[in-house]
Amino acid sequence: MSSAPETTRTHYAHPFDDDKLREECGVFGVFGVADAANFVALGLHALQHRGQEAGGIVTHNTTTGFHSARRFGYVRDNFTSAKLMETLPGELAIGHVRYSTAGSKGRTEIRDVQPFFGEFSMGGAAIAHNGNITNAEALRRELIERGSIFQSSSDSECIIHLMARSLQRDIPERMKDALRRVEGAFSVVAMTRTKLIGVRDPLGVRPLVLGRIGDGWVLSSETCALDIIGAEFVREVEPGEMVVVTPETGLRSHRPFEAKSSRFCIFEHVYFSRPDSILGGRSVYETRRQIGVELAREAPVDADLVCPVPDSGTPAAIGFSQESGIPYAMGIIRNQYMGRTFIEPTEQIRNMGVRLKLNVNRALIKGKRVILVDDSVVRGTTSRKIKDMILDAGAKEVHFRIASPPTAWPCFYGVDTPKREKLLAATMSESEMREHLAVDSLRFISLDGLYRAVGEAGGRKPECPQYCDACFSGEYPVEPADMVERGFKLKTAAE
Amino acid sequence: MSSAPETTRTHYAHPFDDDKLREECGVFGVFGVADAANFVALGLHALQHRGQEAGGIVTHNTTTGFHSARRFGYVRDNFTSAKLMETLPGELAIGHVRYSTAGSKGRTEIRDVQPFFGEFSMGGAAIAHNGNITNAEALRRELIERGSIFQSSSDSECIIHLMARSLQRDIPERMKDALRRVEGAFSVVAMTRTKLIGVRDPLGVRPLVLGRIGDGWVLSSETCALDIIGAEFVREVEPGEMVVVTPETGLRSHRPFEAKSSRFCIFEHVYFSRPDSILGGRSVYETRRQIGVELAREAPVDADLVCPVPDSGTPAAIGFSQESGIPYAMGIIRNQYMGRTFIEPTEQIRNMGVRLKLNVNRALIKGKRVILVDDSVVRGTTSRKIKDMILDAGAKEVHFRIASPPTAWPCFYGVDTPKREKLLAATMSESEMREHLAVDSLRFISLDGLYRAVGEAGGRKPECPQYCDACFSGEYPVEPADMVERGFKLKTAAE
Amino acid sequence: MSSAPETTRTHYAHPFDDDKLREECGVFGVFGVADAANFVALGLHALQHRGQEAGGIVTHNTTTGFHSARRFGYVRDNFTSAKLMETLPGELAIGHVRYSTAGSKGRTEIRDVQPFFGEFSMGGAAIAHNGNITNAEALRRELIERGSIFQSSSDSECIIHLMARSLQRDIPERMKDALRRVEGAFSVVAMTRTKLIGVRDPLGVRPLVLGRIGDGWVLSSETCALDIIGAEFVREVEPGEMVVVTPETGLRSHRPFEAKSSRFCIFEHVYFSRPDSILGGRSVYETRRQIGVELAREAPVDADLVCPVPDSGTPAAIGFSQESGIPYAMGIIRNQYMGRTFIEPTEQIRNMGVRLKLNVNRALIKGKRVILVDDSVVRGTTSRKIKDMILDAGAKEVHFRIASPPTAWPCFYGVDTPKREKLLAATMSESEMREHLAVDSLRFISLDGLYRAVGEAGGRKPECPQYCDACFSGEYPVEPADMVERGFKLKTAAE
Amino acid sequence: MSSAPETTRTHYAHPFDDDKLREECGVFGVFGVADAANFVALGLHALQHRGQEAGGIVTHNTTTGFHSARRFGYVRDNFTSAKLMETLPGELAIGHVRYSTAGSKGRTEIRDVQPFFGEFSMGGAAIAHNGNITNAEALRRELIERGSIFQSSSDSECIIHLMARSLQRDIPERMKDALRRVEGAFSVVAMTRTKLIGVRDPLGVRPLVLGRIGDGWVLSSETCALDIIGAEFVREVEPGEMVVVTPETGLRSHRPFEAKSSRFCIFEHVYFSRPDSILGGRSVYETRRQIGVELAREAPVDADLVCPVPDSGTPAAIGFSQESGIPYAMGIIRNQYMGRTFIEPTEQIRNMGVRLKLNVNRALIKGKRVILVDDSVVRGTTSRKIKDMILDAGAKEVHFRIASPPTAWPCFYGVDTPKREKLLAATMSESEMREHLAVDSLRFISLDGLYRAVGEAGGRKPECPQYCDACFSGEYPVEPADMVERGFKLKTAAE
Repeated sequence: MSSAPETTRTHYAHPFDDDKLREECGVFGVFGVADAANFVALGLHALQHRGQEAGGIVTHNTTTGFHSARRFGYVRDNFTSAKLMETLPGELAIGHVRYSTAGSKGRTEIRDVQPFFGEFSMGGAAIAHNGNITNAEALRRELIERGSIFQSSSDSECIIHLMARSLQRDIPERMKDALRRVEGAFSVVAMTRTKLIGVRDPLGVRPLVLGRIGDGWVLSSETCALDIIGAEFVREVEPGEMVVVTPETGLRSHRPFEAKSSRFCIFEHVYFSRPDSILGGRSVYETRRQIGVELAREAPVDADLVCPVPDSGTPAAIGFSQESGIPYAMGIIRNQYMGRTFIEPTEQIRNMGVRLKLNVNRALIKGKRVILVDDSVVRGTTSRKIKDMILDAGAKEVHFRIASPPTAWPCFYGVDTPKREKLLAATMSESEMREHLAVDSLRFISLDGLYRAVGEAGGRKPECPQYCDACFSGEYPVEPADMVERGFKLKTAAE
Repeated sequence: MSSAPETTRTHYAHPFDDDKLREECGVFGVFGVADAANFVALGLHALQHRGQEAGGIVTHNTTTGFHSARRFGYVRDNFTSAKLMETLPGELAIGHVRYSTAGSKGRTEIRDVQPFFGEFSMGGAAIAHNGNITNAEALRRELIERGSIFQSSSDSECIIHLMARSLQRDIPERMKDALRRVEGAFSVVAMTRTKLIGVRDPLGVRPLVLGRIGDGWVLSSETCALDIIGAEFVREVEPGEMVVVTPETGLRSHRPFEAKSSRFCIFEHVYFSRPDSILGGRSVYETRRQIGVELAREAPVDADLVCPVPDSGTPAAIGFSQESGIPYAMGIIRNQYMGRTFIEPTEQIRNMGVRLKLNVNRALIKGKRVILVDDSVVRGTTSRKIKDMILDAGAKEVHFRIASPPTAWPCFYGVDTPKREKLLAATMSESEMREHLAVDSLRFISLDGLYRAVGEAGGRKPECPQYCDACFSGEYPVEPADMVERGFKLKTAAE
Repeated sequence: MSSAPETTRTHYAHPFDDDKLREECGVFGVFGVADAANFVALGLHALQHRGQEAGGIVTHNTTTGFHSARRFGYVRDNFTSAKLMETLPGELAIGHVRYSTAGSKGRTEIRDVQPFFGEFSMGGAAIAHNGNITNAEALRRELIERGSIFQSSSDSECIIHLMARSLQRDIPERMKDALRRVEGAFSVVAMTRTKLIGVRDPLGVRPLVLGRIGDGWVLSSETCALDIIGAEFVREVEPGEMVVVTPETGLRSHRPFEAKSSRFCIFEHVYFSRPDSILGGRSVYETRRQIGVELAREAPVDADLVCPVPDSGTPAAIGFSQESGIPYAMGIIRNQYMGRTFIEPTEQIRNMGVRLKLNVNRALIKGKRVILVDDSVVRGTTSRKIKDMILDAGAKEVHFRIASPPTAWPCFYGVDTPKREKLLAATMSESEMREHLAVDSLRFISLDGLYRAVGEAGGRKPECPQYCDACFSGEYPVEPADMVERGFKLKTAAE
Repeated sequence: MSSAPETTRTHYAHPFDDDKLREECGVFGVFGVADAANFVALGLHALQHRGQEAGGIVTHNTTTGFHSARRFGYVRDNFTSAKLMETLPGELAIGHVRYSTAGSKGRTEIRDVQPFFGEFSMGGAAIAHNGNITNAEALRRELIERGSIFQSSSDSECIIHLMARSLQRDIPERMKDALRRVEGAFSVVAMTRTKLIGVRDPLGVRPLVLGRIGDGWVLSSETCALDIIGAEFVREVEPGEMVVVTPETGLRSHRPFEAKSSRFCIFEHVYFSRPDSILGGRSVYETRRQIGVELAREAPVDADLVCPVPDSGTPAAIGFSQESGIPYAMGIIRNQYMGRTFIEPTEQIRNMGVRLKLNVNRALIKGKRVILVDDSVVRGTTSRKIKDMILDAGAKEVHFRIASPPTAWPCFYGVDTPKREKLLAATMSESEMREHLAVDSLRFISLDGLYRAVGEAGGRKPECPQYCDACFSGEYPVEPADMVERGFKLKTAAE
């Protein structure tokens, strides 16, 4: 059912910049601090890069029960007002920021915004989910057949209905039952009246970390959100682990799934996670700088300046400059007032595209041979425009260096990717892409180079890759069942 | 779970006038006209007196499926914009206006606003409900125990979940299954992809009428909503009847319940229905004028002027004047710009109370003996203030004549009544009330007089009353099971 | 200069009902009570019928100086919030409600909303104006030539600029200087840091009354606004009088203009003023009832029912029924939820016209000979629709009786009238109008009958009429200079 | 007079970051292109860093006259909607973005937002002003005395009133008259029905550049706004020059003021202008990088990393790293979702301060000796918090290097500076500041070093400085008359 939105809502998607992969969600939870919702709001603000469309917070207070608020737009525009935050009392709270749902056709409704809440006979529970359930459509059909009423178009709602039908008498056990039926990638933060719960899928595709603040406990998608509230980083929740926290018993670790070797998303290192987060014990910034170093070794070129495509290409550009000795310079300046809100833009503004956001430092670029370092090439539309801007400004040569391998396959584990046929690298070789972009040279880091940069000195182990790199390799660690049913063609042995 | 509202919302309840009983809902449906939603919007506008807090419309279009919009506030402020109405295409539509839900603790959320929608394995259905389910709490507990996830605090949501769990393979049959489990008062308008459905409970407590517009069919709480769209009144849906309309087969009538003698709500005649509606074949205005005639016969008094308490006392005041020969006059003037919206009023304004809405025609009233005709006395707070205003303006005598018997019992069939102890007539006799209000005389119409005025020449049949008059008599035709479980004391034989 | 509005604004004009003359303004002021702005808000709420588009309040506080707030929309929707009212401290305040300005081409801007404020070398002053300046365009040209910068399109802004250029050293004296240059109709309420000022033009066309509340003083367009705050009515400000109030000296009366015989607007009695106000010592309601009595005498007809066209025809219909003995009945019911707000209505809703607001009581009207009493006929469009509705409902005969003479001339003294050629009575005789409306009979009260009803037992004195009746007679007591310059044709001796 | 705002308005000032000097305005105008307003909107978007509180656009169209729109908030949130832009037709348009006005006490009203418009007897004119009029208060008193009515609290409104009173019969001549009475710094963009006009004060304190787009002409505060619309940079408007553009005559240059040697604001190079703009023929980015180079020469220190304080310290940090050979690193990460909008923040969020915006890259900083490069120190509050964050993250040493001399004097030429006593450098020596900030070392660039970096190889000429550097030197090129009258103490010979 399509609903007219309850309120006029600004369009928060990037209207002029659909040329990036988009992380779909960030999750955060805290238990054991006064006014927990304030901490969740700060945590979600720090995780805003993982999802900008909407956010939600659920809290529990022993006197007044569960409370919730869900809003479209940025955390800072909603969950900072004293008036709203007063409606979210309690020492236990979880929250979620989202970009969009795999299953959604068309626009998001407020009822699609997580955390989802369910009332069971033993009490209520709320869950927030980062990832994507690859068998959600089949589960949904089955649940409807049995009499469940779905309220949202989100794949994550399956989890609540599976829990509602579990025969277990205890909510964490019901959650185990539910998650064992679910396939795909998930990092879940959940809460009951008395417990904070965190779970990662057996492959550990999406991140989830554990922290402490005073006597309280924190769960977060990334460590940068621990920093903002002054929490101490304890460790990552492990792939396949469920942690259950209560103030009395502290943390208990469960292993509800069969053991598998982990396959963390390598693109979290390249682009999704914030540079000030720590992943697998390493600074994300440092990893990205190291990608630049590897890239300078793999694909050197004689030039006058190394310029990042702001902002995501910056650390790799610094690394490239340091390894190559070619001076680093801000050849492209980003307009810091370019937000995501454009209400029915005029035709003229729609056509401005990237120029609204970026401007070339003409006086600097003129007559120079320029190396542009970007994090990835998706459709190639933005790369083309940036190249045009640089040449218009009088550059003598333009060399693209890309801090990830060619993105040739869509992600089905919680990242918003275009259809395969829209991915430039799905239909062109590196040299065809160079020609298409009409640049002097174009080079991507190799898959092995990327593995080296993230710390795997021996590179990728083809028989059993250490990461999920399906977007580059086409090797999906979990079969995307719903998509295959809809006709998606997996990589053949021949490819 | 209490939620912070998705948008800042004006408070639509009467802040200074809680001294009326409030009808809780109006329903409307149409099938077989282009842009059916526009007709539903007009119908709901005509039914706005039955519920002012919120409204919703669901439509179905063979190409694009179901569509819905739900909004707080008046129909005219929401469902009149071309922009919104374009999102509601189709020839089949139902709608609902609501005041508040029996079950709601605290404020209404947008998810509590009807029509409710459910996706079943054989397709979707939407329902809109006027009335109250007296065993809703027990049903809810049972459904949650079996794994249903409730999304609203509304008693009406039970119907959708009961339908989801029915073993029938056809939606009208599932609805019969569901409604047979439900106790209380209900007039339901529902729709599937191909059918418009109307049902009244076996006692027919709430109204529901059938109309035709061109080749299309209409269902409405009252006939005044047929008039606004130019539809022809066909007949009332009968107590215990289910009508199912399709364009191909026309109307089919079902009788899913065991037969009972009907008990239509007599207060619909006194106050709830609009004076231009037709109930039981009679003009509501004419019935109310007749109540004034009966009252003038039962409780005559020598005076100079008969003045209505605007606006609901007007028809009875006209009848009283005509029967008594005492001139009718507008002694109290209503400010037509007094709406229901007050955003955080100042203390001073809060204290103004009824004076914001009503003003005495001082030059007219001064030195006169005044008969004030009002429709009912609930808490008595407004009556007291009006009496003060009239005396301040220099009236010599004030005589209250009330067009209904003393309201001594709460309604559990879809009307918002104060708790029993707040009802003036629950704790005082007529003469105590006169003394409490400090007026020269106070008389209510007798229950028999009211029955005569509505057309029962022989008055009320005590052994088997022709109407539901529980609010006056304390005789509840359906036991209010949830309320009894919560401790409500039924009338004893001794009372 | 046309400005895009600062905020999205609801269209408050009657989209479906432009068939009434519209009063353009109401003014209110109070001095000597704590939180004077609250009293002004209440007063403006009671005067809302005089102007619904926008309202404004200016206050002065000895510590913090002048404060102001101006808003589009109803008083009750804006000036009731504690948050706003806190920004308006002080014991001295004036306010204004407006419908539209004579001079405005196109839409009103917030800067057109009164009171207007000016800073002079001896301190600030604010003024609020009800009426219309008939030489405003000439004054404006002259002031611009001398270097004044106009900020609004309102004719009233001239007064402030004339004051700014006066050579007097005291604000009331400057106001006298300014108003002596101004032609037309004006009732002005103004304030300085220490004085509340009220002025009426020499003819006293628009009303202005004086009241007391405790030790404080009140100025108001009508007495109904004294009632709402519990103020005592003292007397009318006299035509040509300026009253200046300070707490120390009390009230001082000035006579800045040359004496003339007064010409109060007779249409205030017929339609503009509220029925619970007192004009010229008489209840407006009673005057209107008396018009009905006169009308029944002048234009009797045999019929079954006398029905008012709600709401403004009601008092005259009561009088007509009482004089004729034909029963009074509510044959047309008004939808009380019909507001003035329609945001971009759909085509279908636009075409509904009057049916959105009025419904015929079909069961009552069927087969009856009906007298419809209305206050006036302007374009005749609404009258025609109402007649259609009554006939559709099965009435046997329809007789219109109009409580004012034919409206054949536009008003230039503060009332929004269509251009002359749009006035039905400007182009048709009474019998042509009857034919045009296709009713069984149509009669207007005579001009003499109207004068009798307002208390002039001898009727109108043609050589020196007691009232301004230019809209009926075409005799303009002040020449409308700007309009004549623009080409308006005055009545010739032959007409 | 203080006014309640016409609409609820988000607070756009930096709630947690008042530790920067703020440019007060940007101006932009274009003549000779279709839909000129769209170009102005884009230009203002590119100039948004010069003023974030509000923006306005005025256009002129030969058929429909002048049009205007003024809004609080970002250009991208307002002047991008097709609906609004359609209300601004024409080939001639000017616009303005503002931070706040020198004269305003308390909050800005929409009527304070430029461009200002005045209707003169020979037609209308609109002006937009960047700078500050240092004798505005005296002018205002004089104009009020003569009968002008001021509508805003802005000093710029004086110009319109002076023009209204000029005896010249032509608008550009009236503008010359007006600007000759005005003291201080001003870059003005103005328009009549047929002309686009640009003026810079005799000292040329604020920037203003001239560009061409097709056959059309452009005026802009900075060249970066020419780039966004694809206009070609022609030259700077010269100090003391007035340019008047018409499509027929092209550009004509006037010299209305007595010649003086120019004193461009040196802080435009350091902080205000965008790094991709060109000032005085040099890339601003390159100048800032050069400041870093000078600073590394003047104040070297042994360390492990050079980190910018984002974002304004970045170019100087790059230069410092390149000159010193110490690696450049992103030690502090900026949250790109930190906007300026916080609606009534909770206490807890208010206390977060800079942590909402910046996070330390802990894994990178731990155990390192860190050089932090920032553009300036105003109050020192932010520097202190950043130092704390760096030490908390485990840095071994913290060395501050500041890309401007100590800011010891307020600006009176269009920049929002704290009162002198709030400036850290006004009350402390460099070594006291180091102690106050508790860092291992703190060094500012010397005034001569800064002059060298902006291209004055010989440094500053003390007898006749090439720039306005009053904020560093206390030498004000125009006496701030209003401020001196209010008690501001100029630098004495002894200081």
